[in-house]
Amino acid sequence: MQGKILKKFAETVLSVGVNLQEDQGLEIICPVEKSEVAVALAKAAYEMKAKIVNVRWECENIDKLNFLNASVKTLTDIPKWFVESKNYLVEKGFCYVAISAENPSAFKDVPPYKLAESAKARGKALKKFFGQVMANGIRWCVVSVPTAEWAKQVFPNAEDPESKLCTEIVKAMRLNARDPVNEWEQHITKLESRAKFLNDNDFAALHFVSGTGTDFTVGLCDGHKWLSAQEKAKDGLSFVANMPTEEVFTAPHRLKADGVVKSAMPLCYSGQIIDGFTLVFKKGKIVDFSVEKGYEVLKNLINTDKGTRRLGEVALIGKNSPIAKSGILFYNTLFDENASCHIALGKGYPTTIENGENLTRKELAARGLNDSVEHVDFMIGTKDLIVEGIKKDGTLVPIFKDGDWII
Amino acid sequence: MQGKILKKFAETVLSVGVNLQEDQGLEIICPVEKSEVAVALAKAAYEMKAKIVNVRWECENIDKLNFLNASVKTLTDIPKWFVESKNYLVEKGFCYVAISAENPSAFKDVPPYKLAESAKARGKALKKFFGQVMANGIRWCVVSVPTAEWAKQVFPNAEDPESKLCTEIVKAMRLNARDPVNEWEQHITKLESRAKFLNDNDFAALHFVSGTGTDFTVGLCDGHKWLSAQEKAKDGLSFVANMPTEEVFTAPHRLKADGVVKSAMPLCYSGQIIDGFTLVFKKGKIVDFSVEKGYEVLKNLINTDKGTRRLGEVALIGKNSPIAKSGILFYNTLFDENASCHIALGKGYPTTIENGENLTRKELAARGLNDSVEHVDFMIGTKDLIVEGIKKDGTLVPIFKDGDWII
Repeated sequence: MQGKILKKFAETVLSVGVNLQEDQGLEIICPVEKSEVAVALAKAAYEMKAKIVNVRWECENIDKLNFLNASVKTLTDIPKWFVESKNYLVEKGFCYVAISAENPSAFKDVPPYKLAESAKARGKALKKFFGQVMANGIRWCVVSVPTAEWAKQVFPNAEDPESKLCTEIVKAMRLNARDPVNEWEQHITKLESRAKFLNDNDFAALHFVSGTGTDFTVGLCDGHKWLSAQEKAKDGLSFVANMPTEEVFTAPHRLKADGVVKSAMPLCYSGQIIDGFTLVFKKGKIVDFSVEKGYEVLKNLINTDKGTRRLGEVALIGKNSPIAKSGILFYNTLFDENASCHIALGKGYPTTIENGENLTRKELAARGLNDSVEHVDFMIGTKDLIVEGIKKDGTLVPIFKDGDWII
Repeated sequence: MQGKILKKFAETVLSVGVNLQEDQGLEIICPVEKSEVAVALAKAAYEMKAKIVNVRWECENIDKLNFLNASVKTLTDIPKWFVESKNYLVEKGFCYVAISAENPSAFKDVPPYKLAESAKARGKALKKFFGQVMANGIRWCVVSVPTAEWAKQVFPNAEDPESKLCTEIVKAMRLNARDPVNEWEQHITKLESRAKFLNDNDFAALHFVSGTGTDFTVGLCDGHKWLSAQEKAKDGLSFVANMPTEEVFTAPHRLKADGVVKSAMPLCYSGQIIDGFTLVFKKGKIVDFSVEKGYEVLKNLINTDKGTRRLGEVALIGKNSPIAKSGILFYNTLFDENASCHIALGKGYPTTIENGENLTRKELAARGLNDSVEHVDFMIGTKDLIVEGIKKDGTLVPIFKDGDWII
C-alpha cells in the first residue's frame, strides 16, 4: 500500500475507525516491515491535530526466536512496565490502531503449549486493559495491510501476491470510493438496520443448522444487545473497532449452548493453523471436540481457562457480504470472520449487554456473560446455513436461509 | 550487512562487546529498517544460550513527526512505564546492544529548542538508568550497521553508498579477520598499554595545542584512572562499550579547564549538525563560544543543565588510528570520536575514578567528577596536535606530537 491509497487508508482509519480527536494521543501497533504505514498514519494523525503518536512495533521473526528458545517460565514472566504501558493508553485517553498482518503460520514450528502458556500469561497480565478495551473504555480499530509472507499464503500462485492482497484489502475497506467516509456511513446504516431487527425481536436463542453437521442452539444473555460496525465508547464518541466489518453480533449466554458446531474455515491462532474442527457443547460448555489439523493448538486454546470452553460472541454475516463473495480465504480473522457467521470462545463484550459498561463482573455473569483472558472468533457459516431465532414464547423466526439474510 | 559477515558481526558483538552469558537477557536497540540485524543478534544470542531477547525498535521518521508536531509539554512528559522499562534491564541483569545508525540530519527541520527540551527531560527521567550505565552497572555495547540515509551522507557520490559504508564498518570492527575475537584481544592489549603509561604518570593535567587555535589545559580528577576498550562491569565481567574503539580516556576535573578548544570535525547531535565551533573555558566552565553552523543546537546543548557547561571525559586517539587513516567523516560519533582526540560535555564516568563505582555522587563531585543528564563527545584532535602531560611536580611529559602518540 502506498501513495494516495495509503493516505486514504490512514485518513479513513483515523476518522471512521478510531474517530481521532484533536489533542488526543494515538498508538499504532505496526509490524517493523511496514513502517511506511505507521508513518502515513502518524502524518494523517497530525493533520487531524493529534497530541502525540506512539508506535508499538512488532516483529514475528524475533517473537518466533523467543518462542522457540526461551523457557516457558521466561515467556510467561510479563514485565510490570509492559502492563503499565498498556494501561497508560486508557489513563491518558489514547486511541489505538492495531495493524493485523500476521504470517498465518509464523509460529508453526513452536510447541503449541509454549504459545498457549504465553498467551495465557499475557491475557492474565493484561486483564485490566483488555477489560477496558472490551467495555469500550478506549476507542480502537483493527485494520490490515498486506505483507509479503501473509500474501504468499493467501495467493500462493500469484505473480505478485502482495499487490493482489492489497487490491482485496482496499476493496474490503471501501477505499476505492471517491469518499470512503461517506461509503462507510451508508454501510454502517445498513448493518444497524439488521441489528435493529434482531433487537426488536429480542430472541431468547438462535438455532444454527447446516449440511456439514452443525446443529446448534445458543441462548442469548438476559438484556443482550445486537451491535454492528459502529459502537459508542465510554466517552460518548463513536468508533468502528474492525475495518472491514460486515457483522452484527451479540452476547451468547455462557450456560446456554447445546449441540454440535463444525468449523467452516481454517482458524489462524497464535501463528498456527487449526482446521476442520467440531465442537460439542452441553449447557454452554465444550464437552468434546475433534479436529483435522492443529489438535494441540485447539486443545490448549480451549483449556486456557474456564472461560475458553464457553462462548463470548455470536455474529451473523451473510454469504453475500463483499468479503464472502470474493471467495478468498485470507487466513486472517479480521477478514475471514466477515465472510461467515462466527462464534467466539472466551470473554464476552460487556457492551453487548444493555448498560453492560456500567455493570460489575458479577452482575455481567448474572446476565450470562462469559469471562476469560481470551477471545477467539471462529467461523461456522456455510453456504447452506439456516439460522432461526427462537423468541421467548417459543415462536421461530427465520433469519438466514442458504447462508444469507432473509429478513 | 548480511550472510556470513552479519553472523560474524553478531557473534563478535555478543562475545567481545557485551560478553553475553548463559541465561542472561539481551536487549537490542535497533532501527526498524534493520530488523535483519536484530534477528541475527537474537539468533547468535540464543546460540550462546541467552535467556530472552527483547528489541526496542527505533524509527526516526516517526520521531521526526513527533518532534515537529507535538508540543514541548507533550514531548517532555516521559511516561513512568518507559523509565521502568529501562530500569528493568539493570534489575533483571540484562545486557544491551545499541545500534547507532542515525541519519545525521534526520531532525534538521526540527526547532532545536524542542530537541533540547526533549533530550533534557529524557535525561532527567532516565538519570538513574544512565547513572547505572556509566557506573558499569550493566554491560552494554554501541555498534553500527549501515543504513541508506546515513550512507548517502557519508558517501554522497558513491554508486552504492550503503555497501561502501558497510565495507568501512566491517573494517573498523575487524570483522575481516579470520578470528575477530582474537584480533580484538590483541587490540585491547595494545590500548591497555597506553592506558598503563598514562596511569603510571599520574598526570595532574593535560595541555592541548594545535595550529587551528586550540590552546587548552585540562586538570584531571583526583584519583582519576585511564581506561580503554575493555572495562569491568559491576558483576566482575569484562565488556567493550564501543565497537569500534580506539581511545584511552579518563575524567577531567569539572573545575579545572582553561583556554580555548576548537572543534576538529562536525558533531552530529540529536539529528542535527554542529560545525566549526570554538569553546572558551575558565575554571572548568564554558564562558564563551562561537560556531559556524548549528548555533541554536550548540547553545541549547551547553545550557541543558549546569553540567553541560563542564567536561566529563577526555580521550586520546592518534591520527594513525585505523578510522582516522580512512580519512572518512562518518557523521557518527561512534566512528568520528575514534579518529580524533575528543572531550565530552556533561556527565563523567564514575569508572574513570579509582573505586568510583562505589562512591556517592557527593564523593565523586569532591574528586572533581562532573554530573549532568547529558554526555556528548566532540572532536578536537588535529593532524598537528600536541599533547603534553603535566605531572604533579610540574614536569612536562610529551604524549602527542603531530597528532599522534609518541610514547
